Order: sequence, then C-alpha cells, then structure tokens
Amino acid sequence: MTNEAKPLVGVVMGSSSDWEVMQHACVVLEQFGVPFEAQVISAHRMPDDMFTYAESARARGLRAIIAGAGGAAHLPGMIAAKTIVPVLGVPVPSKYLRGEDSLLSIVQMPKGVPVSTFAIGEAGAANAALTAVAMLAANDDALAAQLEQFRLDQTAAAKAMILPV
Amino acid sequence: MTNEAKPLVGVVMGSSSDWEVMQHACVVLEQFGVPFEAQVISAHRMPDDMFTYAESARARGLRAIIAGAGGAAHLPGMIAAKTIVPVLGVPVPSKYLRGEDSLLSIVQMPKGVPVSTFAIGEAGAANAALTAVAMLAANDDALAAQLEQFRLDQTAAAKAMILPV
Amino acid sequence: MTNEAKPLVGVVMGSSSDWEVMQHACVVLEQFGVPFEAQVISAHRMPDDMFTYAESARARGLRAIIAGAGGAAHLPGMIAAKTIVPVLGVPVPSKYLRGEDSLLSIVQMPKGVPVSTFAIGEAGAANAALTAVAMLAANDDALAAQLEQFRLDQTAAAKAMILPV
Amino acid sequence: MTNEAKPLVGVVMGSSSDWEVMQHACVVLEQFGVPFEAQVISAHRMPDDMFTYAESARARGLRAIIAGAGGAAHLPGMIAAKTIVPVLGVPVPSKYLRGEDSLLSIVQMPKGVPVSTFAIGEAGAANAALTAVAMLAANDDALAAQLEQFRLDQTAAAKAMILPV
Amino acid sequence: MTNEAKPLVGVVMGSSSDWEVMQHACVVLEQFGVPFEAQVISAHRMPDDMFTYAESARARGLRAIIAGAGGAAHLPGMIAAKTIVPVLGVPVPSKYLRGEDSLLSIVQMPKGVPVSTFAIGEAGAANAALTAVAMLAANDDALAAQLEQFRLDQTAAAKAMILPV
Amino acid sequence: MTNEAKPLVGVVMGSSSDWEVMQHACVVLEQFGVPFEAQVISAHRMPDDMFTYAESARARGLRAIIAGAGGAAHLPGMIAAKTIVPVLGVPVPSKYLRGEDSLLSIVQMPKGVPVSTFAIGEAGAANAALTAVAMLAANDDALAAQLEQFRLDQTAAAKAMILPV
Amino acid sequence: MTNEAKPLVGVVMGSSSDWEVMQHACVVLEQFGVPFEAQVISAHRMPDDMFTYAESARARGLRAIIAGAGGAAHLPGMIAAKTIVPVLGVPVPSKYLRGEDSLLSIVQMPKGVPVSTFAIGEAGAANAALTAVAMLAANDDALAAQLEQFRLDQTAAAKAMILPV
Amino acid sequence: MTNEAKPLVGVVMGSSSDWEVMQHACVVLEQFGVPFEAQVISAHRMPDDMFTYAESARARGLRAIIAGAGGAAHLPGMIAAKTIVPVLGVPVPSKYLRGEDSLLSIVQMPKGVPVSTFAIGEAGAANAALTAVAMLAANDDALAAQLEQFRLDQTAAAKAMILPV
Repeated sequence: MTNEAKPLVGVVMGSSSDWEVMQHACVVLEQFGVPFEAQVISAHRMPDDMFTYAESARARGLRAIIAGAGGAAHLPGMIAAKTIVPVLGVPVPSKYLRGEDSLLSIVQMPKGVPVSTFAIGEAGAANAALTAVAMLAANDDALAAQLEQFRLDQTAAAKAMILPV
Repeated sequence: MTNEAKPLVGVVMGSSSDWEVMQHACVVLEQFGVPFEAQVISAHRMPDDMFTYAESARARGLRAIIAGAGGAAHLPGMIAAKTIVPVLGVPVPSKYLRGEDSLLSIVQMPKGVPVSTFAIGEAGAANAALTAVAMLAANDDALAAQLEQFRLDQTAAAKAMILPV
Repeated sequence: MTNEAKPLVGVVMGSSSDWEVMQHACVVLEQFGVPFEAQVISAHRMPDDMFTYAESARARGLRAIIAGAGGAAHLPGMIAAKTIVPVLGVPVPSKYLRGEDSLLSIVQMPKGVPVSTFAIGEAGAANAALTAVAMLAANDDALAAQLEQFRLDQTAAAKAMILPV
Repeated sequence: MTNEAKPLVGVVMGSSSDWEVMQHACVVLEQFGVPFEAQVISAHRMPDDMFTYAESARARGLRAIIAGAGGAAHLPGMIAAKTIVPVLGVPVPSKYLRGEDSLLSIVQMPKGVPVSTFAIGEAGAANAALTAVAMLAANDDALAAQLEQFRLDQTAAAKAMILPV
Repeated sequence: MTNEAKPLVGVVMGSSSDWEVMQHACVVLEQFGVPFEAQVISAHRMPDDMFTYAESARARGLRAIIAGAGGAAHLPGMIAAKTIVPVLGVPVPSKYLRGEDSLLSIVQMPKGVPVSTFAIGEAGAANAALTAVAMLAANDDALAAQLEQFRLDQTAAAKAMILPV
Repeated sequence: MTNEAKPLVGVVMGSSSDWEVMQHACVVLEQFGVPFEAQVISAHRMPDDMFTYAESARARGLRAIIAGAGGAAHLPGMIAAKTIVPVLGVPVPSKYLRGEDSLLSIVQMPKGVPVSTFAIGEAGAANAALTAVAMLAANDDALAAQLEQFRLDQTAAAKAMILPV
Repeated sequence: MTNEAKPLVGVVMGSSSDWEVMQHACVVLEQFGVPFEAQVISAHRMPDDMFTYAESARARGLRAIIAGAGGAAHLPGMIAAKTIVPVLGVPVPSKYLRGEDSLLSIVQMPKGVPVSTFAIGEAGAANAALTAVAMLAANDDALAAQLEQFRLDQTAAAKAMILPV
Repeated sequence: MTNEAKPLVGVVMGSSSDWEVMQHACVVLEQFGVPFEAQVISAHRMPDDMFTYAESARARGLRAIIAGAGGAAHLPGMIAAKTIVPVLGVPVPSKYLRGEDSLLSIVQMPKGVPVSTFAIGEAGAANAALTAVAMLAANDDALAAQLEQFRLDQTAAAKAMILPV
C-alpha cells in the first residue's frame, strides 16, 4: 500500500493480523495528506528485508518509521538499530498478555538506540502517526496549521459531548 | 540552566530530585551541541507555569520537549495537551513501584494527544535526547552526520568490549 | 446534566464513553438528593476548560469533585492541582489493561496534591459518590441520617441474600 | 498520642512499625493545627477495639479517619464498614511486594462501603492528611485560607528549585 | 442452606454472586458427606454478623470455615481474626482484575492470624473443601479412606483421558 | 532437626538457604510444644526422597506438612500429590521476583490436589505453623487453650504498642 | 496417540483440556515427520506415572519431551527432575491469570534442573516442537534441510502478506 | 574468550555488564568440558555482527547458542531469526524491572522462530548451559554419563544439607 507521492513515513508491522490496529496510523496520515507506505515486515521471519528496509529508509526519504508489533515485538527496536530515522513503536495487543509484553519489549530499549513508544493498541497507532505529523510540521507551516486545526476540532468535538442524562 | 544559543529543546522535570535521571538527557544534548534549556516544572505544583511553558514552546522555537516525571507522572501528557511540539516522556523510577506507575501514566495517552515514551530511568532520558537530536537532524545534515558518527562510535565501543575471562 | 438545585458535587469524566461507569456516581447522588452536575471534561482535549472548571469550583459552591478517567487518566490529578476542593478519582477500566493503568495514574499522586482514589469501575464510581455524601453529611444531620439508613438497608439486603441451594 | 484539643481526625495504623510512614500524616495535621489522635489499632490482632473505635468515631467528633496498613491491609476497609465517617486509606509498603498488595487490598472495596485511597507510602500519608484538612476546610474559612496558602507556598517552593547545572 | 447433621464446616461468602464459584466447595463437602452450612456473610455490609459468626464458630462445632470473597476480600481474614478455627480463603475472581486483588488481599495476612489460601475461582473453592475434609480425616478413618479413594478415582480418571488424535 | 517426641508436623524446604524464612515456622511449633521435624527436601534435586517422604507421612504420624519453596516452587504441590495429609505451602521470596513467582506456583494448584498457601516470607512461615497448631487443636483442648492464649497475648501486645510521638 | 515409528519426542500435558493448545506441537512434529507420542500425564493426579514416564524416557529413545501445563504447572519441572532428556515447557493459558502463573511456574526453575520455556499458548507449543526438531536436526542433515526450508517458506509467506488497503 | 577446542556452544551477551550473570553459563560448560566461545554481541549496537554471527553459527559447528540480554532483550530472538541452531535465551535482570521485561521480551516469541527461555539471572544462565550439555549428550554417551553424574552429585549435595538447628 502506497499513496501517490514519495512516502515520508513508513508504516510497518509484523503480520497482516496487526493491520486491525495499525490501520489507525494510516488513517491519520491520510487525513493529514502525509505520503506514506505501509507493509508487512516481520522481524523474525523477514530479518534481512527488515535490515534492508531500515538501512535504506533515510536515503529513500523516510522521515519517520512507525513500527507495530506484538509479543516479543522486536521490529521497532531492530529497525532503530539500523537507522537514525526516528522509529515510533506501537505495542500491538497480544492474545494472552494483552500487550503488556509488547509494551515492555518495545519501550525498554537500551541507552543509545531509542524507540518512541506509544499506548497499546489503536490509540497508540493513531498517536504514533500524529507524532510523525508533528515532526514533519516542524518544517512545514501548512502542516503545522493543519495539526493545530486538528487539535481545535478535537477540542470542539470533546466539548460537544453530551452525557445521556 | 540554559546553554548559550536559543534553545531548540526544552528539558523539564517535576522536581529537582528527578535531575539524577534527567541529566542523562542534558549530557546527550550537550554532546551533540544542541541548544537546550532545563528546568523544574511541576504539573501538580506549578500547573499554570506548565501551561504557559507549553503554550509558548513553539513560538519560542522549541522543536521538542523532553519531560521526565515519576509516579502519577502527568507532566509529559499535560504539556502535550497544550502544544503540538513533540513531547518526549521519560518515566522516572518511583520509590516503591520502580517506575511501573510512571511508565503507564506516561505511555497510555488517549488517541489524539501523543507522548513519545522511553525506557524507565537513565536509558530513557538519554534516548529521549537522542530522539530529539534525530528529529532535528531531519533538516540538519551536519547533525545527521554527527548522529551517524555517534552510532558508529557506539558500535565500535560495543565491539571493543572484552569479557573478563 | 444538572439537577434543579445549585450543585454541590461536580461529576466530570474524560469522554462520554466513561458514562457507563460514571453514571453509577450520579445514581447515588440522586438517591441522596445531593444536587450535582455532570459533564465531559477531557484533560487532554479540553485542558483550558479543565483548569477553568477547577479554578471556579470552590466559588461556584462545589464541595467535592468526582473525576473519572481511563488509561493515562490525568483528569483527577490535574483538577486537584487547581483547587482545594476534594477530588475523588475513579479509575475507568481501559481496553487492554483493564484499569490497572488508570488506577496507578490516579492514585500515585505526589505529596502535596491529593486525589482520593476508589476501586476500578462501577463500584469505584458509586463509592466516590458515597464519599461525597459522607463529606457533606459532616455538616448536615439529615443527610447523615440518610446515609446511616442507607447502610442499614444495605445490611438488611445483604442479610436477605439466599443462596440457591 | 493526642494533641490538646478534641481530635477531629483519627490516625490509626496496624502496627507501630507503620509509624515511619504514617507520621507524615501527623506532621501535616500538626502543621495545619488540626486536632488529631494517633494510635495503633490492628484489624487482625485487635478486631474488637477496631470496631469500638469505628462505632464511636462519629459521636466522639471525628470527622475523618486516616488508616494505614500493609499487606492484606484490612484496617481501612473494616473501619469503613462500621462508620459513616470518611475513611482515608494509606497503603503502607510491604516487605516483599512493596505495597502493591496493600494498595489493592485497600482500594478495591465493594460498592457501598468506600475507602478513599492514596499513594503507597509517605506521599499517601501526607495526602490523606491534606484531604482531611480539605474536608474540614469546607466549613472553616480560616482553614481553607491556610490550605490555599499551603498550596501557594508549595508552588513557590517548586518554582525555586534550581537544577545543579 | 444446611444439610441434616450438625455442620462441621461453615461456607461463607460476601455475596450471593459468589455462589457460582463457592458452590464448588459445597459440592465437594456433599460428595464426602461432611455436614456443612452455607450462607452469605458480607464483611463490609454485615460486619457484626461476621464477628458473631466467627466468635461462635468453635462452640457451634465448626471445625473449618471456608470463606470466599472478591476484590478487597476482607471476609476470610476478619473471620480469622475472631476465631482459632482454621479459615480457608477462596479468592473469587473480580470483574476487572480477575482475582489478583482478591488473592493478594487474602493471602498476605500478617504474622499471627493465618488464612489458608487457595487458587482463584472454582478450583480454589473445591480445594478448600478438600482441605477441610483432609483436616477432619485426621481423626476419622472412614473419611480418610474416602479421601484416599477420591484420590485414586481422580488418578484413574486422569489416566483414562484420551487425546482426540 | 527433630525434637524429642514423635513428630506431628513435618517442616520441609527446598534448600538450606530457605531456613532464614522457614525457621519462623519452627519457632512457632516449638513455642506451642508441637513435636516436629525439619529437613531439606528438594523437589527437583531429591524427587524420589520427596515422594518417599510424602508417601510415608501419614503412616509416620504426620498430621500436617509445612513446605517452603521459592521460584518455580514445586515442593508443596508435589508433596500434596502424594499424600492426603494437609500440605501448608510457604512462598519463599525469590531473588529477582521477590516471591511473586513462588506464590503463584504454590497457590494456583488444580482442582483435586490442594495446598493451603500463606503469605510470602516470614509471616507466611509463622502462619503455616499456627495453622498446623489450629488443626491439631481441633482434638486437643489444651492446645486449643494455648492457641486462644496466644491470641490474647498477641492482642495485648498490639494494644501495648505506643507510637513514638 | 502415537504415529508409526518409534517416538523420538514425547508430548505430555496435564489434562485433555490442554489439547487445544498442545495440538500445535503435534501438528509441527507431524509436518516434519518426527515420530512422537502424545498423552495426558498429570503431575498432581498421576505423579507415579509421571516419574515412570520421565525415568524411562531416555531408554525408550525419547530425545526431547514437550510438556504443557497451566496454573501451578509442575509437570515440565518434575519431569526434568527425573531425566536428563531435554524438557521443553509450554505454559498453557489459565482461566483467570491467562498463563502468567503457568509461565512463572515453568520458567523459574532452580539452578541445576533446566526446563526450556516457550511462549504462553499455541505459539509456545509450536515453537517447542520446532526446537525439538532443531535438536534432532543437529545429527540429521535431511531434517536440518527440512527445517531450513520451513524457514524459507515461512519467510516467503510473510513476504506475501498484503495489507487490505 | 575461547577455550582450546573448536567451540560447540556460543555464549553471547548484549554487554560486558551481563557477564556477572552469564559467567554462570560458562562455568557449567567448562565443568563439562564442552568447548565454547563467549563474547559481547549487542543486538542494537552491533546488529550486523549479530546477523553474521547467527548466519555462520551452524557452519562454524555451533550446536547451541546461549544468548543473554536485559530490558528489551532482542538478542536471543534476533539470533534465532537467522539460524536454525537452537537458541537458549537468558533474561538478564534489568535495573528497575528486575528482569520481568527481559523475560517477556525473550519468551514471548511468535510462532515459527523459537527461543528456549530460562529463569531470570544466574540460575537461568547455568540452566541454559546444562540444556546445551543435554542436547550434546544426545549423541555423546560420555557426556550423557557425565550429566547423569552431575545430577547424582547434585542430589547428594542436597541430601547433605543440614539445617542450622
């Protein structure tokens, strides 16, 4: 999956079963018109592709990589080990431990190789994308304005919430 | 604490007792020559200052805010609620729960207001700073080169490790 | 939602989706005839409204604020940071961590800014309301009598429980 | 331990070994000039005394009971079962589980019998006392002013924190 | 619920909703022909009845008390505080924390007042009853023989398990 | 270690390093004059001895077996699998997980083979012994009186606790 | 269940209810043509059979034993105590704690008696079997080639995953 | 570090600071006379070396790889992704979470790429080595006899343990 323009953000995940969660990142990127690519890259079943992906990311123009994975969840950390492009990790909920394992496996990176980690599940996927947008917005006033507007709309939507009483 | 140039990164923490951990962020920023400021801003004891800080961050030129906090750890999330500047959260270890509370309080942000979260303690503080550097490096080739070199040096240092056998 | 009289208790929650849990607080307040108001105030999407709400709470006559939130759950603590009116925090169960994150984010407040915390979910919401009633009852003998009677009825109901054997 | 005036707040704990934590509640109460009493009442070793204490609390003029306990930590909940005076529970850190057991044993009360729960350890003890003060302040303008001032002083102290850089 | 003979074992639980779990204790007792009684006694809503029950247990001939409770789960420990009759505690699964809170609240009793604790849920209820049987069997050779036979039958049933391959 | 009389209680533990915790069981048994034996039996290093011990326990006159173990902690459960004598399990704190692993490994026994489980560490060891005493007291009025007195003394000692204020 | 050839791998589990998880081990073994046997052996209900099984395993030609169990989960560790044949433990998810108890009970074995532990549930069962295959492949070039091919196929399948975008 | 013969087992760890734990694996291998090599390979700082190591392991004659790592602990799983040589993972205790993160990051591997996981810390390191020995012993009767003897000695040592009573 790739939209028209040269992608600025790469969205990767360990399996197509992670799509249910990770699509929330793509929805946000589309909403902001940020060109991105999305694909399955499994750390454990496609380790060489993972390294190639990470190594070439910067040269290909990627400015952020959003990586979602569950369980042992090595994908975000290993991509981070092979590129200086910021990696945004999303803990995908696991079947029995509900993502506690995914969260710890992603966030507890050693000093020197960072992964920005977000909440378990859909919220985390969306927020990783919003962070990618915010990073791009640092040098893109239009995008920054769009992000400010997103926040204002979000506030307005929250204010409009009526309790069923 | 502020170094000479106009700060690009703000380092904030809930108490001066967090300095032991958070100084590891400042050491990295200094190492890369990234202008930064560091100060105590308590979410709970200085809420208005916190909001003023967050609201003015972008206009003041901050490109990233590193926020460390322990326990209920509201500082990173509340700053994030008031600015689109990326917020990098560092869970400071707490006395009895060793930072498990800090980690969950920082990372489990709701959809729409992201905080990039890092490992509990020193490693997380250093990695938050490295992420700030990486973000700045997206539009600063010299800094990118410096970051690539840091990685190479780090690899070399790891390779040079000899086991005491 | 507001009942007739000038509200003595404010019930706030981060999203309308928290209503399913938080309505149990309102049911108790209605049962005791305590005037209250209930509304959505999101810490992260409506931070300024949250501060305004908290700052004005005492002057508006609120004697207790019941705040429910899930996940990072900053609402109770940040309201508490802006008012001396007692804040009663209710951990709303979160999707993947079932409220363990909400509980720790609410209860682990730093010294100086307290939040009274209750059980995760419906029981916690009801008990926060009962605590508000108990606080008001300290200077309201009729309400105190009503609360004593509630306890007696509750005891009677428990005694009347028959096991299906 | 009792100071001169008729106590408005009772501070109880399961063992004299809890004093190290619970004294932080007493320090706050003294600071605000709130008359209080402090004593050991063990839920498991002094159950009858516990019930007598709870039953007589309201008539004796107590307006809040701060109860600290560790491990199974039944003291706050059982006092709450015997009085409508608000009970403020402080989880005392346990030897092996660091208070996680104490916290859950105190906070997870069933619907109908509330215990306001605070952070594990010293911070929780102090905050329970501040909550007692806030409750009393609802009908005591001087105490309310004192509490407002405490908050201002606290803010000032936080603002004055200088990082060792 | 009481079967014909003078009960030797008391089965108590905090609410009729605990019956789904606690009936597994009663089924075992019936299977072994051990006279027992089963009733709801809520620690928090029926504290006086709980104390009366515990105080009179030994004189009434009870040789073991099986107590099931969920969440804060004070019932087993408080009964144990009021009698030297052995108390067998069953952690009933709680709605959000699945019995982790119940388990810690029951098992982490302080030195001096023991509660024998069993697994969360049905298995724990059944095993508490088997322990009561084993205690009675110490002075009842027929019951001991019955228990030995139960074990043999159980082994035979396990041996007879065929995998669906 | 064996005291004079024919032992009624067996105290076993997986290693001599568990003695620091398990001696608290022996101290209680001695205090009550209950004849007991104490020895190391490792489930994993002495499996055959463990089975022999369990198989012969009832015939040798043991009325209760107190088994302490840490980590995977199979000792209590495997002894229970080989005898109908009640097994009282004590979770010994482990080096890294502080006994959380020991507790779950001991308490989560399947339906049909019960282990009475006690608190992690010293308190659990003492309480297991008190439970053994209580079981013996069911047919020993003198021991029952002694246990009642122990409780009275314990209550008196708690009542005598003075806070250092 | 036994396939034609003399089994090289034994698959055992505590109950027929574990089959849903453990069949994933058998599927893998069949896929690789590794002769195996599968049966129920309950540590707690069939302790003698368990010992006999373990004692005879090596002489019978077993080169690995895959043992699945839930809750207290003593089966893998006790088999390991009675044989030097490598034991591969699979934590079966438990009803209330979802396998956290099973995992800790299996993995936290003391020094000297190892159990190789795998992920909770189906993935762990399959991976235990793959590890048995890998062990056999050390002296079986054809099997090694088959395992290499399995990995290549697995990589190809992952590469072929298309996201539904 | 390499002993004389061509190594059959590779011992790798993420940092020289892991040596304190991982040396326990080497001590066991030396005790059994199994040729091994030990070195630092950091998954995150030496990713290419890690892949080269794993890719060449089988051809170089390694029959097992023992990998120790802490925190996010990707080393064992990523080596496993690049070789069919069995990988034995040792969770090294982390500073704040004591190895809970390391354990989950290592054990929760996805289906298809197994890592045999052992206890946190020293015991796990020693047991990983004993498992490597057991695997080699499958085709080495002398080593098998040595391992049987090790077990007998271990049993004898446990039997010889005297309690200080």
